[in-house]
Amino acid sequence: MLGAILHGPGDVRFEAVPEPTIIHPTDVIIRLAASCICGSDLWPYRGLSPVDAPMAMGHEYCGTVVAVGTAVTTVTPGQFVVGSFCLSDNTCPHCNYGFQSSCEQREFMTGAQAPFARVPLADGTLVGLDTQPDDDLIPSLLAASDVLGTGWYAADAARVKPGGTVVVVGDGAVGLMGVLAASQMGAGRIIAMSRHAPRQALAIEYGATDIVTERGDAGVARIKELTNGIGADSVLECVGTDESMQQAIRITRPGGMIGYVGVPHGVELDGQALFFSQTGMLGGPAPVRRFLPHLLDLVLSRTINPGKVFDLELPMSDVAEGYRAMDERRAIKVLLRP
Amino acid sequence: MLGAILHGPGDVRFEAVPEPTIIHPTDVIIRLAASCICGSDLWPYRGLSPVDAPMAMGHEYCGTVVAVGTAVTTVTPGQFVVGSFCLSDNTCPHCNYGFQSSCEQREFMTGAQAPFARVPLADGTLVGLDTQPDDDLIPSLLAASDVLGTGWYAADAARVKPGGTVVVVGDGAVGLMGVLAASQMGAGRIIAMSRHAPRQALAIEYGATDIVTERGDAGVARIKELTNGIGADSVLECVGTDESMQQAIRITRPGGMIGYVGVPHGVELDGQALFFSQTGMLGGPAPVRRFLPHLLDLVLSRTINPGKVFDLELPMSDVAEGYRAMDERRAIKVLLRP
Repeated sequence: MLGAILHGPGDVRFEAVPEPTIIHPTDVIIRLAASCICGSDLWPYRGLSPVDAPMAMGHEYCGTVVAVGTAVTTVTPGQFVVGSFCLSDNTCPHCNYGFQSSCEQREFMTGAQAPFARVPLADGTLVGLDTQPDDDLIPSLLAASDVLGTGWYAADAARVKPGGTVVVVGDGAVGLMGVLAASQMGAGRIIAMSRHAPRQALAIEYGATDIVTERGDAGVARIKELTNGIGADSVLECVGTDESMQQAIRITRPGGMIGYVGVPHGVELDGQALFFSQTGMLGGPAPVRRFLPHLLDLVLSRTINPGKVFDLELPMSDVAEGYRAMDERRAIKVLLRP
Repeated sequence: MLGAILHGPGDVRFEAVPEPTIIHPTDVIIRLAASCICGSDLWPYRGLSPVDAPMAMGHEYCGTVVAVGTAVTTVTPGQFVVGSFCLSDNTCPHCNYGFQSSCEQREFMTGAQAPFARVPLADGTLVGLDTQPDDDLIPSLLAASDVLGTGWYAADAARVKPGGTVVVVGDGAVGLMGVLAASQMGAGRIIAMSRHAPRQALAIEYGATDIVTERGDAGVARIKELTNGIGADSVLECVGTDESMQQAIRITRPGGMIGYVGVPHGVELDGQALFFSQTGMLGGPAPVRRFLPHLLDLVLSRTINPGKVFDLELPMSDVAEGYRAMDERRAIKVLLRP
């Protein structure tokens, strides 16, 4: 089969790769209904994370089980499944604490930008549906695999509460899902920081009550103005740069929480400054598996429509164009059809 | 009158100072029942914080109101009061959010190592008692002013829960109060990191279930061993050095929280490392005023005895010896009688 391989910065190719097979008895092989490109795929694509060897790309997935290892008990061939980008056994103490993304057996999914993929630790990672989903729900189910679950975790880590004031830093797909999550959690005010009209529109559709286009000092001033000088109860940091993190810290009220889900690149925090700001922080790779059953319920009942975050759909063979479109910010998030 | 003035590193003198007077209508003047020396007083005493001009020392206090400003409504002359080391109006949005230590009008108390002291923002800062307390309760009431409230905040910020596993880093007075707080909050296991026999004994008296004497890699290994490799749900960082903070981060389970109350000196946090460790953090100067009514109830009902943390009592005129005793770790905490 053909799959997406990153050979170096800017060089992603759809090329011959081995068909996945069951390696461990806890593995499952799925035929992907759809895959997509993640904002985090752009770090190595842009040369900001090292690419030491050709990398099989893609960690977001949903689809149909085609083969199961001998130890797999919770899903069966033919069943439609959605899984987290973080592979976990869902039985270890960290999983039981709700932090499957720090599972003792944690692995990260790879190779999902391809027609078939191997999902290790299937019982702990996948959630199977009772029936085949309608075709139009595929994008939303796919979103649950990472970007929705990650935005949801950002809101959870930032302790979004009913009636609370939330700021979302970053208008990428995760930030937009953070807006959706905060809205579902009952936030009273959701301020999206965005300077791109299509993303602003989607943020408002997902529940943003205010848009702030300013950044840096002006962005801080605007947020303070909107919050009567107080700052936000909860801030979702969905970028991962030092600039965005400093922005987040400066707009969080004392005692407020930042949920940060952008993988930090070059972020250094001064302990004493953080101390006197009384900013609470919790971040990390999202334990999507914790939220997955609830998120799938919301999607299947058509309560939420996270799939709208995909504003470009391409055949998988055009994966290179998908990376370019996201790199150049021509697309928020690209869905790939096998 | 005479009061404690720090002139430079190692140079604290009990010398003539002006008697405090009402400056603002929200001020109160109190006659101190007792004062004490704080671990944080040692930062400038040791030259680790700058001393640009002579500093009037002392921010922990309880005693009797002798004069009130015209705007003061909640306490009256003759009443016994306890207040927070952080002065706050207790009406601004930050105070209402429970973070009086970030009050819009925040000031830090000074000049309490003296027979009389001025307490600004008295209505928002002081809690008055209904009756005169028994003499033997004075040390515990004084402890509530800072060290008990700070240990309590560390436990609150670290989200100590009934049955949870807690590690306290630092066996100074605040750390010991953190042990007491965690115990009151129902923690199932409280591991105190201490290598000083008298402090270990007091930690156990306050509710510690385990003592760990190792530090650094060995300390991490020991905590991991005691927690079945998991780490602690809640870690109270009560020192403020980079070493102690790194220790705290390494022993917190993914998704666990560090409450840090030692003023960070030279602490730099790597954003990406913190991200992948999934360590939650909340710190800062303690909003003691939030906890003060509850803490005074616990003291007055003799449910807790935080005053035992004072293991050396001196007349205020011997304040210099008090600083030396704490600096040399001959005393955990020194109580000063006017």
